[in-house]
Amino acid sequence: MRQFILPQSYDGAGDLLLNAKESRYLTRVLRLGVGAEIVARDRDGNTRMMTIAAIDTERCTLRTSQNAVHGQTLPAYRGPSANLVLMQCLLKGRKEDDLVRQATEIGVTSIILVQSRHCVPNAKERGAGRIERLQAKVREALQQSGSAIPTKVEERIIPLLELPAWWASRGKALFFHQSEQDHQQSLSAIANEIALDEPVGILIGPEGGFSDEECRILSQSGFIPVLLKTNVLRSETAAIYALSALQVLLNERN
Amino acid sequence: MRQFILPQSYDGAGDLLLNAKESRYLTRVLRLGVGAEIVARDRDGNTRMMTIAAIDTERCTLRTSQNAVHGQTLPAYRGPSANLVLMQCLLKGRKEDDLVRQATEIGVTSIILVQSRHCVPNAKERGAGRIERLQAKVREALQQSGSAIPTKVEERIIPLLELPAWWASRGKALFFHQSEQDHQQSLSAIANEIALDEPVGILIGPEGGFSDEECRILSQSGFIPVLLKTNVLRSETAAIYALSALQVLLNERN
Repeated sequence: MRQFILPQSYDGAGDLLLNAKESRYLTRVLRLGVGAEIVARDRDGNTRMMTIAAIDTERCTLRTSQNAVHGQTLPAYRGPSANLVLMQCLLKGRKEDDLVRQATEIGVTSIILVQSRHCVPNAKERGAGRIERLQAKVREALQQSGSAIPTKVEERIIPLLELPAWWASRGKALFFHQSEQDHQQSLSAIANEIALDEPVGILIGPEGGFSDEECRILSQSGFIPVLLKTNVLRSETAAIYALSALQVLLNERN
Repeated sequence: MRQFILPQSYDGAGDLLLNAKESRYLTRVLRLGVGAEIVARDRDGNTRMMTIAAIDTERCTLRTSQNAVHGQTLPAYRGPSANLVLMQCLLKGRKEDDLVRQATEIGVTSIILVQSRHCVPNAKERGAGRIERLQAKVREALQQSGSAIPTKVEERIIPLLELPAWWASRGKALFFHQSEQDHQQSLSAIANEIALDEPVGILIGPEGGFSDEECRILSQSGFIPVLLKTNVLRSETAAIYALSALQVLLNERN
């Protein structure tokens, strides 16, 4: 664990009594005892050193360390980073979990699940349970990677046709479609037109790709079609591919 | 399936009697019948249209199609592509399988497993069985992705200290180490010095990273340390990240 993500409810003042699950993670999985120091981060991205002040049978108490060395450096990039928003069409269980973990490691600012025409229907997994599971994956990945970017998961699944209205032109939005179409651009060309602090939406299709109708509507709504100079990638590979390449293009330009 | 990978033993002449496993894949999984046409590719990268000429109880026979439309296009990039060689320190089972599949989709020319100091020991999995399993994963990924690059898996696991001699300066070799060191370069800067047809080695450390001693030896052997402007990534994420970004930098430059 590179950092412990504090509960949303903690306002930063006073002692923090952890719930049984979080306590078990620190005391059983990481085998930390009273007096152990950890790097803790709140969901706004602020870090502090905290000490395990007490452990009772089920729960442990964290206290902000006295004489904490501020600005403690984790061995990770701390510079300005691109504002990447992943809009991912639904995947099957494990693939979606792995992708959410990897996208969080890389440092996307938010992840939105999208329902499109060719998504495999997966009725059991719809709704709150699915989002909660992904939020837990994000939390694990933030703790493990030490990412300074507090990745959020959008609370509901957005239908593709509602996506342009939801995105509301907050920045450029790109969609990746591996068959030749009009007006497709290369990733490097687009990257040259994106400012580092500008949100950039990255929409990745499902296993079956976007329908022609969906491509038309997305283009008409201002989403930019991108053609990658690579093979036909599976959906989850395409997502990591696009995020990685775009982050390098943007972060290294500055 | 975008293409069927022909057995190494097939010389291209006459009918091809498939083994039971391959036959089952075509007839049971893909539910193809007599007369069905498929795109077939030999391990040298040549494609042809073939027809299922006969199916007996266990095995089916493929025959090169008459009047086949040559130059049939698969919806994938067919342009010149970077010559990427992945040198990957050992990972645990499923992670290694997934990474090999994804690297094949992206189009690496070869994959070499590397044993380094901080690799998790996994004695049961050493040796021929492990390599054979990965070769099967590569074959699946080639069939699924339609990649024109016949990815190879090196037949043995190379110890890290033997890697420079094995690589023998056939091109630039990069190693990725996410803590600050002397002489580290950015990926974009290195990419500017690589020709598209020059093999480029991409060495990715294990979960525990490289030891200081390993970093020193690699640097002295001409391997170039690269520092990514991103979070600390897990090993398998770092591999896909580096391959994706480098492929975009190289393929889109041309």
